[in-house]
Amino acid sequence: MTVIKKVDKYIEENLDQNLKELSEFCSIASISAKNTFLSEAADYTKTMFEKRGFVTQVFTTEGAPVVFAERKGKTDKTLLFYNHYDVQPAEPLDLWKSDPFHAEIRDGKMYARGVSDDKGHLTSRLFAIDALLDQMEELPCNIKFIVEGEEETSSMNLEAFVKTHADLLKADGCVWEFGGVDFDETPLQYLGLRGICYVELEVETANQDVHSGIGGSIFPNAAWRLIWALNTLKDSDENILIPGFYDDVLPPTEADIQFFQELPDKAAQYQAQYGIKSFLSGLQGGVELAVAEVFHPTCTICGLTSGYQGPGSKTVLPAKASAKIDFRLVPDQKPEKILTLLREHLDRQGFSDVKVTYLGGGAPGRTDPFDPFVQVVVNAANEVYEKQMKIVPMVGGSGPNSMFIEHLNIPIVTAGIGYSETLSHAPNENIRLTDYVKGAKHIARIILNF
Amino acid sequence: MTVIKKVDKYIEENLDQNLKELSEFCSIASISAKNTFLSEAADYTKTMFEKRGFVTQVFTTEGAPVVFAERKGKTDKTLLFYNHYDVQPAEPLDLWKSDPFHAEIRDGKMYARGVSDDKGHLTSRLFAIDALLDQMEELPCNIKFIVEGEEETSSMNLEAFVKTHADLLKADGCVWEFGGVDFDETPLQYLGLRGICYVELEVETANQDVHSGIGGSIFPNAAWRLIWALNTLKDSDENILIPGFYDDVLPPTEADIQFFQELPDKAAQYQAQYGIKSFLSGLQGGVELAVAEVFHPTCTICGLTSGYQGPGSKTVLPAKASAKIDFRLVPDQKPEKILTLLREHLDRQGFSDVKVTYLGGGAPGRTDPFDPFVQVVVNAANEVYEKQMKIVPMVGGSGPNSMFIEHLNIPIVTAGIGYSETLSHAPNENIRLTDYVKGAKHIARIILNF
Repeated sequence: MTVIKKVDKYIEENLDQNLKELSEFCSIASISAKNTFLSEAADYTKTMFEKRGFVTQVFTTEGAPVVFAERKGKTDKTLLFYNHYDVQPAEPLDLWKSDPFHAEIRDGKMYARGVSDDKGHLTSRLFAIDALLDQMEELPCNIKFIVEGEEETSSMNLEAFVKTHADLLKADGCVWEFGGVDFDETPLQYLGLRGICYVELEVETANQDVHSGIGGSIFPNAAWRLIWALNTLKDSDENILIPGFYDDVLPPTEADIQFFQELPDKAAQYQAQYGIKSFLSGLQGGVELAVAEVFHPTCTICGLTSGYQGPGSKTVLPAKASAKIDFRLVPDQKPEKILTLLREHLDRQGFSDVKVTYLGGGAPGRTDPFDPFVQVVVNAANEVYEKQMKIVPMVGGSGPNSMFIEHLNIPIVTAGIGYSETLSHAPNENIRLTDYVKGAKHIARIILNF
Repeated sequence: MTVIKKVDKYIEENLDQNLKELSEFCSIASISAKNTFLSEAADYTKTMFEKRGFVTQVFTTEGAPVVFAERKGKTDKTLLFYNHYDVQPAEPLDLWKSDPFHAEIRDGKMYARGVSDDKGHLTSRLFAIDALLDQMEELPCNIKFIVEGEEETSSMNLEAFVKTHADLLKADGCVWEFGGVDFDETPLQYLGLRGICYVELEVETANQDVHSGIGGSIFPNAAWRLIWALNTLKDSDENILIPGFYDDVLPPTEADIQFFQELPDKAAQYQAQYGIKSFLSGLQGGVELAVAEVFHPTCTICGLTSGYQGPGSKTVLPAKASAKIDFRLVPDQKPEKILTLLREHLDRQGFSDVKVTYLGGGAPGRTDPFDPFVQVVVNAANEVYEKQMKIVPMVGGSGPNSMFIEHLNIPIVTAGIGYSETLSHAPNENIRLTDYVKGAKHIARIILNF
C-alpha cells in the first residue's frame, strides 16, 4: 500500500472524529459583523493547531485576533494556507431547519453556519495534516496557516498585518480559503478575484423632512439630488461614465477566454435560479456571458434609502437620501484610484453636495494559470475527483487575495469542500460529507507533491 | 348689549365646558391609517350634533362612516361645514410631552393628537352654534355638516359620497376644515388647494437579491432601472420632462400675485426652520418664492427603497426597487391625466418594466377671491382678530376641496383655530386657547352674517 493510499484510508476511517471537531468549532457563534465570540474562536483555532504540533501565535489587531501557526517540514519549501474563523450572521433564523450553531448531519450533509465558510475548510485541511502525520514524523514541507477573524466584514485589518508580517508569512505558494466542485461535479480551480471599492453616497438637503405640499416646488430634495448624481455614474447601456474608470482595465487574454470555453454555460442555470428574463448588453450565454461576468468592472447599486418607505402614501420631501454602491474591479484597477475618480467626477458634475464614504475595498488579484504550483493542484484534484479540474481564471467575487499576491509575491490556488448548494451566507449552509473527504484527500496530495 | 356681544360673552364664559367635550373627543384614538376607533369617533360626532338639535345620518362607505348633520335655520340659505373625525398616527410617541390621547392644558395651550386637526376645529364650530342657540331659538341660516373619517388617508371614498349625495349636501357656501393665523398673528384666508397624484414606481428584475460579485456585470439591477426611469421624469433644473405635463397649467392671475405681495416673506423662516441653504431655481424669497411655492406643479420623490439599507456594506444586487412620488397639481391639471401621461412617457422611454401604482389623488380646487362669501368671512375675521385678514389665493397642500367645488359648485372658505406652531401631524399637536375662542367667535359671525 502506497503512502497516499494509507493517507486516504486514514481520512476515510477517521471522518467521525474529525467532524466532531468541526461540529464543536461551529458551535462557537463567531460572527464578525456582531463582534461575538471572536476571541473564543481564535482560541479554539489555536488549540486545534497545537494538537497537531504547530507553533502558534495569536496577534491582536485593531479588530479580531489573527492566528498564525507553523510546522516545519522536511524541505525548506513553504506552503501557506489562508482561512478565517469568523462567520456570517445566521439570520433569518426561522429559515434554518436546524440550529445554525448546533451542527447536524442529515442525508450525508452537515448543516451549520460556517460549516463550509470557512470552518469546514480549515478543519478539512487539518484532517489532511492528521492523515499525513499518521504516516510520517515530519511533514513533506513547511506548513503555515494564517487564520483571520474579519473576512466576513471586509478584512479591514488584514492588509496591515500581511504587510507588517511579510517575513513571517513568507511562502512559496498559498492555498486560499475555499474551493470545490461545480454543479456538474467538475472540480474548479479559481485563480483570480475581482477587487472591490464599496462606497456610500449621501445627500442631506435640510435638517428635517418637509411636508411635500410646502417644499415640493422650492426646496431641494435629497432623493432627487441622489438620483441625478447616480445617473451620471452609469448609463442605461451599462457604460460607467466616470472619466478614467476604464483606463487601467486589462482585457482577458486568449488563454483566459479558452479556459472559459471549457466551462459549462451558466446561462440557463442563472435564469432558472434567479428568474432573470434576459442578461445585460444582449448577452445570451456561453463564453461571452462568462467573460463579461468576471472581466467587466461594475458599478452596482446595492441599496437605496430615502424618505417614506412604508405602505401607502406619505407626502414628505426627504431631507436625506443615500445609496450603497460597489464597484467590482478587474486587473489593474485600484480602489483608491476609483474613489478619487468618483469624487472628482461628482464635483465636476455639480454634485459636491453628495458625500462619498469609503466602506472598504481591495485590489483585484490574479494568479498565472500556467504557474507550476497550479499544475500540482490540478493534478492532485484529477486523481481525487476522477474528473479533470477546470481552470476558472477569475471569479466575480472579491477577497483579500491581492494583498498576499502583492506583499508575498506568491501564487494562490483554491482547494476545498464546496459545492453548488453549499448556501454560504444563507440559511441551511451545508457541506456534503463526500466533498469533505475528497477535499481532505486533495489537500494531502497538494502537501505531498508541493 | 348686542346679540354678538352676548354670543362672545357666552363663548368666553363656557370655554371649560366646551373643552371638556373636545378633550373627550380627543381621547378616541380614531386613526384612519390604522383603522382604529373610527366608528366610535363617528358615533361620538353624531352625539355631539344631536345634543345641538341636529338631524343626523351616518352613512357607511367602503371605508370609514360619513356623518351628516343638518339643522334648519330662519332663511333658506345653507352653510356647509366640512370636517373630519379621523387623526394622524401619534408616533413617534416618545417625543410627546403628554399622552397624545389624553388632552392636557399647559400654559394656555391644549395638547392632544387631533386637538387642532381636526377635532378642535369641529368642536369650536359647535361651540359657536351653542353660543348662537343661547341667544336665539332658530339659527340664522340652515347649517349642514359633513364629517368624514378618512381625511388623513386621502379621503378615498369621499368623492363617490359627495357625488351621490350632492342634493343632500346642497349649500350656498362651505367652510373648510381648517383656518387660523400666521406666525405674525395675521388671520389668513386660504382659497385654494393644489391637487395631487401620488404614485408608487416599482421595478423587479429577479426573484431574489443576487450576490453582486455574480450578477454585477450581467444581471439587470432593479435599483439602476429605477434610477434611470426616475431621471427621465425631472431634470436637475427642476423641469418636469413628461410630455404634456404642463399643458393644462394656468398661470397665477395679476390679482393672485398682488395677494401674495401683501403677505410676509417666508424665506428667512423656511431657511431657519428647515436648515435650507438655498431655494430651488435661484429663488431668493418674496413674491417669487411664494408664487412658485403654490403655483408651480411638482414631481417630488417622497421615498426610495432598494436592497441593503443597514449599516456598513453588503454586496448585493437588488431584485426590487421602488419610489414613492407625489405630483402636486395646479389648476387645471387633473390626476387621471397625469397618471396616463406618466405611463405613456415611461413606455416611450423604454421603461415598460417600471410598474406604476396609483396611491390616490385629487384635482386642484380654487375659490374666487372676489366671491361675496369670501368678503363676509374676511369682515367677520377683521372684527374678531382686530387685524386685517389676508387672502392666500392658493396653498401648497392638497385636500378634497375640488370635489365640493365640482359637484356642489360652491365657494369654499377657511376659518379656524390653527397657528404657526400647531404641529398638526407631529408630536405635541396643540392649540392656543385664545385662538380657540377667537375661532368660535369668527364662526358665530360668519353664520350670523351669511
